[in-house]
Amino acid sequence: MAATLEGNACIGQSGGPTVVINQSLVGAVEEARRHKPIKRILGAVHGTLGMMAEDFKDLTRTSRKRLEAVADSPSAALGSCRHKPDEDDCAAILDVLQKHNVRYYFYIGGDDSAKSTDIIARMARREGYEMQCVHIPKTIDNNLVGSDHTPGFGSAARFVASAVRGDDLDNRSIPGVKVDVIMGRDAGWLTAASVLARREDGDGPHLVYLPEVPLAITRFLKDVRQVVMEHGRAVVAVSEGIRDASGKLWAKKLAETSDADVAGDAFGHFQLSGTGALADYLTLRIKDGLSSLNVTRVRGDTFGYLQRSFPGFASPVDQGEAREVGRAAVRYACGGKDGSVAIKRKKTKKYASYTELISLARVAGKNREVPKKYIAAGGNDLRPSFVDYCLPLTGGIPETEALV
Amino acid sequence: MAATLEGNACIGQSGGPTVVINQSLVGAVEEARRHKPIKRILGAVHGTLGMMAEDFKDLTRTSRKRLEAVADSPSAALGSCRHKPDEDDCAAILDVLQKHNVRYYFYIGGDDSAKSTDIIARMARREGYEMQCVHIPKTIDNNLVGSDHTPGFGSAARFVASAVRGDDLDNRSIPGVKVDVIMGRDAGWLTAASVLARREDGDGPHLVYLPEVPLAITRFLKDVRQVVMEHGRAVVAVSEGIRDASGKLWAKKLAETSDADVAGDAFGHFQLSGTGALADYLTLRIKDGLSSLNVTRVRGDTFGYLQRSFPGFASPVDQGEAREVGRAAVRYACGGKDGSVAIKRKKTKKYASYTELISLARVAGKNREVPKKYIAAGGNDLRPSFVDYCLPLTGGIPETEALV
Repeated sequence: MAATLEGNACIGQSGGPTVVINQSLVGAVEEARRHKPIKRILGAVHGTLGMMAEDFKDLTRTSRKRLEAVADSPSAALGSCRHKPDEDDCAAILDVLQKHNVRYYFYIGGDDSAKSTDIIARMARREGYEMQCVHIPKTIDNNLVGSDHTPGFGSAARFVASAVRGDDLDNRSIPGVKVDVIMGRDAGWLTAASVLARREDGDGPHLVYLPEVPLAITRFLKDVRQVVMEHGRAVVAVSEGIRDASGKLWAKKLAETSDADVAGDAFGHFQLSGTGALADYLTLRIKDGLSSLNVTRVRGDTFGYLQRSFPGFASPVDQGEAREVGRAAVRYACGGKDGSVAIKRKKTKKYASYTELISLARVAGKNREVPKKYIAAGGNDLRPSFVDYCLPLTGGIPETEALV
Repeated sequence: MAATLEGNACIGQSGGPTVVINQSLVGAVEEARRHKPIKRILGAVHGTLGMMAEDFKDLTRTSRKRLEAVADSPSAALGSCRHKPDEDDCAAILDVLQKHNVRYYFYIGGDDSAKSTDIIARMARREGYEMQCVHIPKTIDNNLVGSDHTPGFGSAARFVASAVRGDDLDNRSIPGVKVDVIMGRDAGWLTAASVLARREDGDGPHLVYLPEVPLAITRFLKDVRQVVMEHGRAVVAVSEGIRDASGKLWAKKLAETSDADVAGDAFGHFQLSGTGALADYLTLRIKDGLSSLNVTRVRGDTFGYLQRSFPGFASPVDQGEAREVGRAAVRYACGGKDGSVAIKRKKTKKYASYTELISLARVAGKNREVPKKYIAAGGNDLRPSFVDYCLPLTGGIPETEALV
């Protein structure tokens, strides 16, 4: 039945972009063109906002050449949004989709996008409107439940690990304490990826702090002191999402005690990125707390939006998988299925992956933390098994060599 | 005479590292090995600090393979320093150099390194100690007098322009105001390079602020407001070294009115990098000043140390030139000359460069600003002639494509 359901496809992109989100878009478009029942391919401009405004970009005949250029480009080529559609919004969207005879609905995004896709799919079923709805995963945060990993993560991990490798060499050449604040609100996967920067004993990052492990400032300073006493320097990777013992974000505590605006986004998330406040706070505390060690050089960097948008440096593995989840989504939909595409890892020695369709409800609004098995006993480092997990996703980190 | 002066060579690296400073080191080492009068090659560990402490790494027989791996690595492989040797230090250094029969002295660094090289060269001449002293240029700031450009700049410019290109796509997909703070204390070359990110009309950076043009906050906010009204968004490139009408650094003014430490380095420079304070201040002022425009999304990133240390993304042109200035330095020294190696540009249609030896005094302690001819009339943008100047040095910026 569903396999011969004739009509149009609609595809949108949502949330924070990645450097491979367009691979998934192009994968879906090229696969959709191979399926006869799909007549037109409508790209929603700025995700659900475009759907509500009937703002579509027709991708049915976009040239192959242009699509390939788009696939290689960071950020959401159709425009993204931070809009979280409520039931009324979803009803309005469904009206528009019906009006445009959309029978295949694809939404590329994270757990919030899986949620809105789930709402729209249920609504369509309730109304008896036949439409296959498939969520295409995307997030540098790697926090989608049911996946081995998510498209976007491998490239962001490659960027972060490479950045920390360069930064560690820089710190080695002019020793001091360096704090690098890394994206990841609710899960520390990307911060954890900083450990891929290590080549040999003594290499940074020497300390790694994830949102999964509650952290007190006294413990933080004690750790840094110990590393400085051992190595004469310290490179510290800190997630923007680190929390205190009560589960409260350090960044939020900080903003509440300063003059700075406490800004939230449309999802009710507190703004963590696009500010250097956490890194600046930590470096200040280190300067104060370690003054007896005569550490004069304490610096903080916040890697910021470059982690999700830097061009020309994507993981080839990630690029390939992001393309594939887009293609797979169309195949699942044309097979009459709703759900969320998940990447699974083959149990082979050489890294390989495949896709599986899981239920939207399983992914919707959920968060997948870094499991305890990957976190070292002290809570400030990762185990070697995490490197085995993460390194293949990056396609490798540039080699480096120093003399002293 | 000097051409057959037999003895050892000493080479050191100084100041903020770059991703190609090791190319110059390796270029000098490989060339030195070809000159019979040079017996041993001593690498000074952490620059002049290592010379004073007699801490040398013998590079006479370091394997070709290892040297090539070092050349491809960011940061100073011998260690760098922020030490500014005074006359007493230089006398101590000269003693050590004489003790080790150093007859060929090479120091890789910026204008401060040219200065210490000049002091040591004069001191040696005064004492009648025969030693050729050549300064090898290095700085991402591109601010050395007498050069068309400096090794390190092309790669940093490539990183910055690529970062802004990705960031502009990100900002286009989720519109708002984005402030990117870029390195460059006394000259805006690197901030200026952000304009290479533009592909077509409407692309960011929409505004570019250099230390060369005094800036008032009222003017800044007026500019941003105008761009937001025209494009519905704004990407703003700001040098960390922007100054007010009196020539005072914004970052310094800011630190004096906050709780933050006002930190200086050994050169008496105020700390600009390794803090997000300027970007955070600017985004706060934009949020306040543009509240009537209903701009809810205002973010700031400070590109930080990644600009000078990110691996695997160097400009091939810069890599080649950095290698060549190292080789040239040895040839000049073996030809009996003291001086600073400068890169000059050939007046050919296709980009090409050559080296020239200029006097140490010409470079020592001097700063080369972005000339007025490259700055657009409004003072907040660059002219097309700057793109012609800068683009060839980067070896090109990744291509990108969006759909809307």
